Amino acid sequence: MRTSKRVDLLQIIIIQISDYMGNQGKEKITVGIIGATGYAGAELVRILSGHPHVRLTILTSRQYAGVRFDQVYPAMRCHVPLICEAFSMERLGDACEVIYMALPHKIPMTIIPELIVKGKRVIDLSADFRFNDPDLYESVYQRHTAKELLGDAVYGLSEIYSEAIQDAVLIGNPGCYPTSALLPTIPLLRSGLIELTSIIIDAKSGVSGAGRSLSLGTHFCQVNDSFKAYKVAEHRHNPEIDAILSREAGESVSVLFVPHLVPMTRGMLTTQYAGLKTQVTGDDIRACLDDFYSQSPFVRICPEGSLPETLHVRGSNFCDIGFKLDERHGRVILISAIDNLVKGAAGQAVQNMNLMCDLDETAGLMQMPYPV
Amino acid sequence: MRTSKRVDLLQIIIIQISDYMGNQGKEKITVGIIGATGYAGAELVRILSGHPHVRLTILTSRQYAGVRFDQVYPAMRCHVPLICEAFSMERLGDACEVIYMALPHKIPMTIIPELIVKGKRVIDLSADFRFNDPDLYESVYQRHTAKELLGDAVYGLSEIYSEAIQDAVLIGNPGCYPTSALLPTIPLLRSGLIELTSIIIDAKSGVSGAGRSLSLGTHFCQVNDSFKAYKVAEHRHNPEIDAILSREAGESVSVLFVPHLVPMTRGMLTTQYAGLKTQVTGDDIRACLDDFYSQSPFVRICPEGSLPETLHVRGSNFCDIGFKLDERHGRVILISAIDNLVKGAAGQAVQNMNLMCDLDETAGLMQMPYPV
Amino acid sequence: MRTSKRVDLLQIIIIQISDYMGNQGKEKITVGIIGATGYAGAELVRILSGHPHVRLTILTSRQYAGVRFDQVYPAMRCHVPLICEAFSMERLGDACEVIYMALPHKIPMTIIPELIVKGKRVIDLSADFRFNDPDLYESVYQRHTAKELLGDAVYGLSEIYSEAIQDAVLIGNPGCYPTSALLPTIPLLRSGLIELTSIIIDAKSGVSGAGRSLSLGTHFCQVNDSFKAYKVAEHRHNPEIDAILSREAGESVSVLFVPHLVPMTRGMLTTQYAGLKTQVTGDDIRACLDDFYSQSPFVRICPEGSLPETLHVRGSNFCDIGFKLDERHGRVILISAIDNLVKGAAGQAVQNMNLMCDLDETAGLMQMPYPV
Amino acid sequence: MRTSKRVDLLQIIIIQISDYMGNQGKEKITVGIIGATGYAGAELVRILSGHPHVRLTILTSRQYAGVRFDQVYPAMRCHVPLICEAFSMERLGDACEVIYMALPHKIPMTIIPELIVKGKRVIDLSADFRFNDPDLYESVYQRHTAKELLGDAVYGLSEIYSEAIQDAVLIGNPGCYPTSALLPTIPLLRSGLIELTSIIIDAKSGVSGAGRSLSLGTHFCQVNDSFKAYKVAEHRHNPEIDAILSREAGESVSVLFVPHLVPMTRGMLTTQYAGLKTQVTGDDIRACLDDFYSQSPFVRICPEGSLPETLHVRGSNFCDIGFKLDERHGRVILISAIDNLVKGAAGQAVQNMNLMCDLDETAGLMQMPYPV
Repeated sequence: MRTSKRVDLLQIIIIQISDYMGNQGKEKITVGIIGATGYAGAELVRILSGHPHVRLTILTSRQYAGVRFDQVYPAMRCHVPLICEAFSMERLGDACEVIYMALPHKIPMTIIPELIVKGKRVIDLSADFRFNDPDLYESVYQRHTAKELLGDAVYGLSEIYSEAIQDAVLIGNPGCYPTSALLPTIPLLRSGLIELTSIIIDAKSGVSGAGRSLSLGTHFCQVNDSFKAYKVAEHRHNPEIDAILSREAGESVSVLFVPHLVPMTRGMLTTQYAGLKTQVTGDDIRACLDDFYSQSPFVRICPEGSLPETLHVRGSNFCDIGFKLDERHGRVILISAIDNLVKGAAGQAVQNMNLMCDLDETAGLMQMPYPV
Repeated sequence: MRTSKRVDLLQIIIIQISDYMGNQGKEKITVGIIGATGYAGAELVRILSGHPHVRLTILTSRQYAGVRFDQVYPAMRCHVPLICEAFSMERLGDACEVIYMALPHKIPMTIIPELIVKGKRVIDLSADFRFNDPDLYESVYQRHTAKELLGDAVYGLSEIYSEAIQDAVLIGNPGCYPTSALLPTIPLLRSGLIELTSIIIDAKSGVSGAGRSLSLGTHFCQVNDSFKAYKVAEHRHNPEIDAILSREAGESVSVLFVPHLVPMTRGMLTTQYAGLKTQVTGDDIRACLDDFYSQSPFVRICPEGSLPETLHVRGSNFCDIGFKLDERHGRVILISAIDNLVKGAAGQAVQNMNLMCDLDETAGLMQMPYPV
Repeated sequence: MRTSKRVDLLQIIIIQISDYMGNQGKEKITVGIIGATGYAGAELVRILSGHPHVRLTILTSRQYAGVRFDQVYPAMRCHVPLICEAFSMERLGDACEVIYMALPHKIPMTIIPELIVKGKRVIDLSADFRFNDPDLYESVYQRHTAKELLGDAVYGLSEIYSEAIQDAVLIGNPGCYPTSALLPTIPLLRSGLIELTSIIIDAKSGVSGAGRSLSLGTHFCQVNDSFKAYKVAEHRHNPEIDAILSREAGESVSVLFVPHLVPMTRGMLTTQYAGLKTQVTGDDIRACLDDFYSQSPFVRICPEGSLPETLHVRGSNFCDIGFKLDERHGRVILISAIDNLVKGAAGQAVQNMNLMCDLDETAGLMQMPYPV
Repeated sequence: MRTSKRVDLLQIIIIQISDYMGNQGKEKITVGIIGATGYAGAELVRILSGHPHVRLTILTSRQYAGVRFDQVYPAMRCHVPLICEAFSMERLGDACEVIYMALPHKIPMTIIPELIVKGKRVIDLSADFRFNDPDLYESVYQRHTAKELLGDAVYGLSEIYSEAIQDAVLIGNPGCYPTSALLPTIPLLRSGLIELTSIIIDAKSGVSGAGRSLSLGTHFCQVNDSFKAYKVAEHRHNPEIDAILSREAGESVSVLFVPHLVPMTRGMLTTQYAGLKTQVTGDDIRACLDDFYSQSPFVRICPEGSLPETLHVRGSNFCDIGFKLDERHGRVILISAIDNLVKGAAGQAVQNMNLMCDLDETAGLMQMPYPV
């Protein structure tokens, strides 16, 4: 008794029944991915091709238009039968309810306004809709040509802004570094446990964060068995972090952000140093984090004596958070680990879609990391 | 609207309905893993904790008895709430219908006979029940103390022996190297396309194949950025491969098997060289493989111009197979890639359980590999 | 015309003439290495076997006594014909003028006093003689049994304490982390450019720093493609750094030190954050570093726009230093890269011997790093 | 007493004296490298900048003309003060006696004829002058425009053709794969110990073999933690190996050559399978190899029970050779390890220059590999 390779009947039955029982009256959501052959795009394909409430309808790729997606990513051979196509506003209009933009910044803002007019829900993984303040965006990136949408776009840090996300039609999906830095910090900030003037963020990322485009900086021989800092105090995720912290604090906050490159494919570990308000104890911090994330399926607070490692979140949408007190100097060291391509990009984007579409927040996202 | 971290209601509903609809009358299968904290054991935990028809009840570990499993493998924190316990025949008897043995050879044969008497189904990942011929086993390993079971034990190469597996109570789960070597070869052998006297198997494995035990050979600094052959023409998987090929051929077949160690965690690529029978063409080989595996959900034959890479199967139960003709010498070069811990160990073991328990062969096993 | 493999006459001639010309009257220095088969010990063997003024006479190894050294390290096959031997005070007394101790702390202090009495020069790579203050040592490590030597032992940070090193008979060779942290900091401290109350040291090391002993933490599969912090704010190199900075400052200084593990064999990159004194500019810092190290062959100050990478120092005794201003917060970010086994251990130990023995500081140490 | 960073007097003295004593009357050889910023070119710079009898005068680079070499390769900062320049026949004519060509094939043959006319000695690392037979070259590569030189060009497999190399003015430096495959095979072939009809070469290379140019195949994320075969039975080094073996055998020999890519920067391990002539024993093979290479400083025959690993030759010009008998099938398994950039490219090129210029064969090449 063998099941056919292509038609897993039981799986289809399960999904159909679950549609019926758990989402009565709901059809599958039709989804398109613009820029499906970059690393974030391909990770979206991987996650969404296993999502119980999604039907992938359109994958676009400038470079690979006309080529089967699984020729570009043979890992998914036999399981993603779509052919990459060139971008077409018309095709998207007809075939997709939800659209993911996995393109470099600058292009999304030229496309998204029309999608919004057509009534689509859009999740943009670029920086184009992460800033509410157009001047700030323009000082960091370039001229913004769709400023009228900035006010309505919601910053898609799922655990923090879930309510606004549920009502949004346009999500500015956070950068990987900001996600890893903000998740441990915001609860402490909101509880008034840390000083905001002294935060230093020393972050370390795997190479996939640089994307699939070719550059000497991602050549195996330049990266392998080496380690370096880059864009020290001048990375574009610094103002993104500052903007969100300032919004949270109700005053201008600026942090120092220093990224490093680790010889690994996936993973991001962020070590943050923050001064503690007087009298704050380790128990206060633990209680604050435990409480804040008690209902968050993707945030795991490490028990005492244990700290995050990127190995433990690889391939998953988890953010693991641990901390240690520096009692001599009245500081807390916050350590968080994510997979930069999942919680730092595609996974959080799907989590946001789940929230927007009133699905279970974890739908399609509960894959465990490998033990090694 | 957040779901609780621990109780994913929808998932439970899906599983319950699928139990009801797809497996009417079936309860969840209770499963124990003996040796759960080695790499193969932990991989079983990962796969089975997401298996829709399984309830994990017992995880044993000599080294970590009394310790929460997710303290040993924090990757699974919050999702595998079991505590490791010492081995107890009584506990197993009460709590498990299916038992996986993930121990070094020699120990399983002292435990399994009693489990069989108790009516359990046993899948043994060691070599103890891979050989039908006790003399052969004893010449390669050591004295066998449960020879009476060898006749009934079934060699768990799922795609090849699925019928016998469905009726088995004891599975000798194949070694990783034999799995990767036999899957491309047996179809060609059965179709009489290749010479059996000339086969050379040049195999390359990731480091996890050596297990979690400490040895200089798995020290990061000894392995990283290096490559070597080991146990050349004297690895114990050589007689295992010979035995199966001989059984298939109905005559004594002996191959030359040379394993190598690759600086990567998971993955196995096997390059085989076999003489072709006269007049055999590339089309013959492709037709043979395509046909043989047309109903096999886990074997993917690479299209012409494409060859397997371990990246494309990492973390999955797939075996990707490609080939090339060496027309000048009348040979075929067969290349296969598997994840040594999944199709080469835990994944195939679960596939065998699915077959034994009349479940969908793919249940719990359809995770896609990451794009990178 | 082939030269014999074992007898490179020209090389011998060169060395003999150079002995005669450059070091008139000097014999080759006889050298022993206690603990020659650990990673630091083996690195000493590599460097010293090519040192023009050294004759290696004794290599000891508890584990490999009686075994040829090049069987343990086949990289040096045909070029290090010595056999490892058990430790023998008598043999050392007869055969060595300079002795390197590459043992875990605690053992060296039981051996070194007698060596000093015998008139040997000793360079100890353990922590046993790095602290002048026995109470501090005992609070960090364990009871010290040779306190009488602590006053005379010299901390072997070559560029900083070269004068004292030249007159020393006992060197406490610095830890790898302290070397990488102190070299950029001390010049700025001496020039009064930085605040001492605010220093944060975020350091990242390759795996060889953990040594050759087996532990789960150096298992390839636990380290590969992952990143983590460890011993956060409680690593024993923290008090070592504090002690030296306090000595330099003439007041108690305490820094926060957080080490991380990088999936690479060799290399250490240290990112330091220090507040600047008012009015200090980038030019001040550059001038200070350039000036301080103008005569130091092993310290290279990166030109503006360039920062250290561990790739650029791998295998060499270089320490590359770069920096960046964080003008918004009045801080400097100091980045230094070393090879933890060379400048962080064996290389600096040889540099110290060169200083002690009035040889060229660079003798035996001018190997270039590989381009990749 | 510090020596200046730039002027290592002792070293200069040693070199001058050795010039005087060991090479009486010899001046330093002026050397240019065409294509100095590719990986093979940069490795030539590394080796030659430490060569006692060489003065590097010209480094050319199309991409980096006008840029300091050590800006492109900061590993060599402070030690290679040359500026890359555009190619100029005139400059070369004036400033270099020996010229290394480290360019892609096709270009060297347009340049070299004029260099030869000018009386230069040329070592070409491309394939352009590796084949004596122009038709063969043209069938594998493209039209040859300097056929008149093919007869005089010498194949620079140093240990095998040293006599011809000593008299040559133009060297076709061997490919990395042919070097690793031919060194173990030719002695056995010359001694008539192996069958020539059955040779299979299963080779594995690090990523630097693909060069510094950008391609998806060298993107860190595509290579890291993965393994694959490529150009199976159609790599251009296959005809190169065939041509040399045929020349040696005096008859047409064709082997099967299958290369693989290992996730490491440097290193090449080649596993060869060859049928043994009747009655040949392991002792015969060992005696043959030991004898053949008894005077070869760079070939190390592994003692029984030991096999090559790429770690043991990394960064060095060594070729380590080991073997094992497959007695059941009358085969020998030959295993050889080299550093693809050193013995497989730049190191062998320098060895050839040493032979051509009547220098010690090992001059500049006796750096030991790191222990790890």
